[in-house]
Amino acid sequence: MAVASMIPVQAAAKRLGHQSMRFETAPAIIASASVVGPREGQGPLGRYFETVLEDERYGERCFEQAESRILKDAVNAALGAAGWQETELDALLSGDLLNQTVASNYAVRNTKMPFLGVFAACATIAEGLLVGASLLEAGLAARVVAAASSHHEAAERQYRYPNEFGAQRPPTAQWTATAAGAVALVVPATGCETAGLPRITYATIGRVVDCGQKDPYDMGTAEVPAAWDTLVAHFRETGRDPAYYDLIVTGDLARIGSEIFREGMRRRGLEVGSRHVDCGVLLYRPEQDVHAGGSGAGCAASVLASYILKEMRAGRFRRVLFIGTGSLHNPVSIQQGEAIPAIAHAVAIEA
Amino acid sequence: MAVASMIPVQAAAKRLGHQSMRFETAPAIIASASVVGPREGQGPLGRYFETVLEDERYGERCFEQAESRILKDAVNAALGAAGWQETELDALLSGDLLNQTVASNYAVRNTKMPFLGVFAACATIAEGLLVGASLLEAGLAARVVAAASSHHEAAERQYRYPNEFGAQRPPTAQWTATAAGAVALVVPATGCETAGLPRITYATIGRVVDCGQKDPYDMGTAEVPAAWDTLVAHFRETGRDPAYYDLIVTGDLARIGSEIFREGMRRRGLEVGSRHVDCGVLLYRPEQDVHAGGSGAGCAASVLASYILKEMRAGRFRRVLFIGTGSLHNPVSIQQGEAIPAIAHAVAIEA
Repeated sequence: MAVASMIPVQAAAKRLGHQSMRFETAPAIIASASVVGPREGQGPLGRYFETVLEDERYGERCFEQAESRILKDAVNAALGAAGWQETELDALLSGDLLNQTVASNYAVRNTKMPFLGVFAACATIAEGLLVGASLLEAGLAARVVAAASSHHEAAERQYRYPNEFGAQRPPTAQWTATAAGAVALVVPATGCETAGLPRITYATIGRVVDCGQKDPYDMGTAEVPAAWDTLVAHFRETGRDPAYYDLIVTGDLARIGSEIFREGMRRRGLEVGSRHVDCGVLLYRPEQDVHAGGSGAGCAASVLASYILKEMRAGRFRRVLFIGTGSLHNPVSIQQGEAIPAIAHAVAIEA
Repeated sequence: MAVASMIPVQAAAKRLGHQSMRFETAPAIIASASVVGPREGQGPLGRYFETVLEDERYGERCFEQAESRILKDAVNAALGAAGWQETELDALLSGDLLNQTVASNYAVRNTKMPFLGVFAACATIAEGLLVGASLLEAGLAARVVAAASSHHEAAERQYRYPNEFGAQRPPTAQWTATAAGAVALVVPATGCETAGLPRITYATIGRVVDCGQKDPYDMGTAEVPAAWDTLVAHFRETGRDPAYYDLIVTGDLARIGSEIFREGMRRRGLEVGSRHVDCGVLLYRPEQDVHAGGSGAGCAASVLASYILKEMRAGRFRRVLFIGTGSLHNPVSIQQGEAIPAIAHAVAIEA
């Protein structure tokens, strides 16, 4: 069925091209929290995390339930830091790498939180922020939390092999982080104290890019063309250029992907240079044996919710472009000969 | 980090309680399309579907790729019926039952469609409509499509057993539909012809309810408490009662779940009576050997995109409350002894 004659006309100011949007209300990030595993706690960002687990099981019967618990803890910590009760929340947007995003589903069961499941693999937190900010912008919600998690042992046995199997990992492999991050968003009321609070000002929705890369042990490389695609759209549609931002954060291209990413941006006339950092590179020290670096929906979420947002609050960064990048395959699709489709969503956060 | 002193105040008129929302712009459903498998085509709704496959493989190498293709066909058919080019779309919101929602991911790879992955199992289309309508309401998008799919063979071998194995199914089991549905949304411009077009007026975001039901061969029963929870919130927060609606459509509680659902609504003083239909009951004839009825993200999506919306356009139904209901477990969580958490999202569609 159709009404082909109906031509929609929209207010143009908030829509920038077909992928980018400007948030007139600039939703504020009122609080954030992160929970990470022991290895992540020993990394260079250790002091930024609210909670560092002593072991990956976290007292639960299995790794999957541990992941649900760290996600729940991160969400509750963000709620607490925002001064919100669980019953005051209008929407939690969350996703994770487990099949059917069960870490998120079980984390919020029998709570009072209205829940919207989102999935963009390692880019999930970026999608959650974008959709959450849209609900606020529309006036349909007043308090939302975006969250994401991953768990090393749970992800490895689902996507690849159980760690006990001892499969050798190639140097291009990334280390799925045991981590969860949660970010609380609100539209500040007139007269409220918002100076210094990071605000979401722009976002760019990604498209699914498949460059034919079939090696699931090299996801950073598979995600790079999606990051290029989204960033080219972001800069074209917003009229900004990379120099506008203090920091351009990808999550997670890791070491190998980051090199290719920067080189490709240079060739596109969009030099990111030393402004660029990657969550998968930031999360671990090179000597921590994580090969190309970190990955997992919790990697970008926890690095954003800790280091990035805390340093924004401290005034070190003022204008941050946060680009979640995710590989959208699954083990069956790879076995069936498919390549790895990827996506990147960008969110501009400004203090 | 936190700014606990900041108390957000929002325009109250669009937010109704913490779960429900009123869409001031009432986004219009300008077009919809559905593609289904042979069994679904032989069911009572056969004549409403745009495309009925001759076989479940649809000329593809495997069932998973066939699912991607039927989803892509449904999206393209909806775009065509709306008179939109792929390049004009501001967002596609889609999800499916395959791990990491790969049916959706591969369906849109290397297209020009900005993509947001959503997941709520069989309630996915309801979440997509809700989020898509929010993007329109915010003025951040002008043209969006919400879609969802499932594929019988692909789902059975992922969630349970390959059909070739011949496992016996209990009478409570539901039949995962091979189906995809896509719905195109727009905010009508002033002066446009919108008479008779179904509009999205209200929505209620669900919460994850786990009533302790552990049998994955009885998902309808597991989803009923989530449906009650969302509908009680919907009627309380909107001030409406069941008699307001011509049709209260769940998808998919199937036969057994529907009985329990109606009885529970009666006990809550919210008699739905003969206004209630269920997509899993509507999709097949009892003699089609589907046991309790249909299920799968494509079941509710295809029934909405065909029968419900076409009959709304024809004037048979004017006020429809569409409630997607989804089981949020996975096979591993069941093997680990967990129960089935479920969610229901409600969307009010009015002509």
